[in-house]
Amino acid sequence: MMKYCIGIDMGGTTVKLGLFSREGQLLERDEIATRWQLGRQTVLEDIAASAHTLTGRRKIPLHDCTAGFGVAGPIDSQGYADAVVNLNMYDFYPGRELSEKLDNIPVTAANDANVAALGEMWQGGGKGYQNLLFITLGTGVGSGIVLNEKIIHGAHGLAGEIGHIWVNPHEPETCSCGGKGCLDQMASATGIVRNARRFLAKTEAESSLRQINDLTAKDVFDAAKAGDAVARETVDYCMGFLGKSIADVSYVIDPEIVVIGGGMSKAGQYLLDVVFDHYRRYPKLKKTLCRFALADLGGDAGIYGAARLALDL
Amino acid sequence: MMKYCIGIDMGGTTVKLGLFSREGQLLERDEIATRWQLGRQTVLEDIAASAHTLTGRRKIPLHDCTAGFGVAGPIDSQGYADAVVNLNMYDFYPGRELSEKLDNIPVTAANDANVAALGEMWQGGGKGYQNLLFITLGTGVGSGIVLNEKIIHGAHGLAGEIGHIWVNPHEPETCSCGGKGCLDQMASATGIVRNARRFLAKTEAESSLRQINDLTAKDVFDAAKAGDAVARETVDYCMGFLGKSIADVSYVIDPEIVVIGGGMSKAGQYLLDVVFDHYRRYPKLKKTLCRFALADLGGDAGIYGAARLALDL
Repeated sequence: MMKYCIGIDMGGTTVKLGLFSREGQLLERDEIATRWQLGRQTVLEDIAASAHTLTGRRKIPLHDCTAGFGVAGPIDSQGYADAVVNLNMYDFYPGRELSEKLDNIPVTAANDANVAALGEMWQGGGKGYQNLLFITLGTGVGSGIVLNEKIIHGAHGLAGEIGHIWVNPHEPETCSCGGKGCLDQMASATGIVRNARRFLAKTEAESSLRQINDLTAKDVFDAAKAGDAVARETVDYCMGFLGKSIADVSYVIDPEIVVIGGGMSKAGQYLLDVVFDHYRRYPKLKKTLCRFALADLGGDAGIYGAARLALDL
Repeated sequence: MMKYCIGIDMGGTTVKLGLFSREGQLLERDEIATRWQLGRQTVLEDIAASAHTLTGRRKIPLHDCTAGFGVAGPIDSQGYADAVVNLNMYDFYPGRELSEKLDNIPVTAANDANVAALGEMWQGGGKGYQNLLFITLGTGVGSGIVLNEKIIHGAHGLAGEIGHIWVNPHEPETCSCGGKGCLDQMASATGIVRNARRFLAKTEAESSLRQINDLTAKDVFDAAKAGDAVARETVDYCMGFLGKSIADVSYVIDPEIVVIGGGMSKAGQYLLDVVFDHYRRYPKLKKTLCRFALADLGGDAGIYGAARLALDL
């Protein structure tokens, strides 16, 4: 059995790497620029060099390690990536190619949101659970699913795309996917701001939000916590769609815990309470209600999850 | 490696058993009454006796077999059954108990709808695929999910309960679950009949359905196929909710194929076409549209699936 795991999280701006003990302790960490403009081979060589640096610092032979590789695009169940659009990488096997540059140590790749879900299960907000729905609320709504401590990838690597469940037949604007009324349009930071503006326009009521020019989701949550009625109405409306969607997803995959991360999760317990209050209205769930928790690893969820993925190799 | 698999499907009226080769050929079949009124031990002993009969007929030693056990209730990821209400069985480990009565050969248990999904993947309508959503349309709407050739159980054995996704905010009647507007109320045989009555009451239009006293879902589908406008409107309305739900579920688990079984699937290709037409309206799915197929094994899906489950032991 290998003694260490390397977790790699390849994003559009930087690649994060972590060297972990099998028990989940982060021993060494690195972050390098993603030089995708120079092509895939360069990026993979940069990653390999960084992995050598990390293990070198601890005088650990690379052959005592396995590696997990989180990639910002769909990876199918064969480890194949059709398109990682943001990095201009197409038609390749990320795990296999990285392994070749890492003295052929075992490397397995998966979608980055799914990997982050696994990280939160291993050492984050979902620690102690085996069945988890992880949701990131940021510019968009992303998610990852872990059942029995394994990532659910789906046939095309697209499992957990809950942001495009259609939830609101009354939404007039078109989503980036071409649909109308996606969860993404309601429960993302962008959705919160757009809906707050609508509520403000619809009413004459006093609201602290009216003084803010460049409204953000954080402003709306802060005002809601301070008791602002329009802000509360907005949060309740938008998070109602999220609570309903979590209930729907629970019927499909039956998780134990819902972990919420992403920028919006900084709204903390208040956010959890509002979402949970909507989620628990669905009577069939009574006996098997999920716990709700905040994500705990922030931007490091990806390297933790990738390392956890490597643990099974 | 074991040479044969025994598939067992324990329902409320009968227990079906099949002896299979590892390649999926059904060698021997038996069906016995489920004498649940005499208690769990009697039922398990009846099953063991039947398993001995099946293997005896072929002169196969029981120790050359593994067994899979489909049970009409939720089984959690530890193989534990909290309650199999229809059989009055509570708080037990079905696989473990049956193994004790079967000379301790390996036995694994799972929920019967999930097992049927696996059966359809192995030798039925989903043959050749690894990632499948199986839906049964009968008195209710049931489902089972198979990803990478493995059943998705969920934390409490309740994965695939898609019948209780809330789909229709305008439904006035209460569902058995206590909710209002569940998929079950729209897309089940009962739902089709109730909605046909409503459409008939709402219009003066001619319809062959008006002559039928004891309306069934089959009547509605037959009339729709024959061109009856009210019947077509009913089918389109009810199956629209199913198509939308399949799209939602696809975002969550990303299957390759949707297999539709249950009594209503006798409506055949016409049913598939209507559901698919609604499902494919969701633009984000474009690149990864599922195939749709009819279930192929009828009431034997359970024994096939249970045998396939035993293949992994």
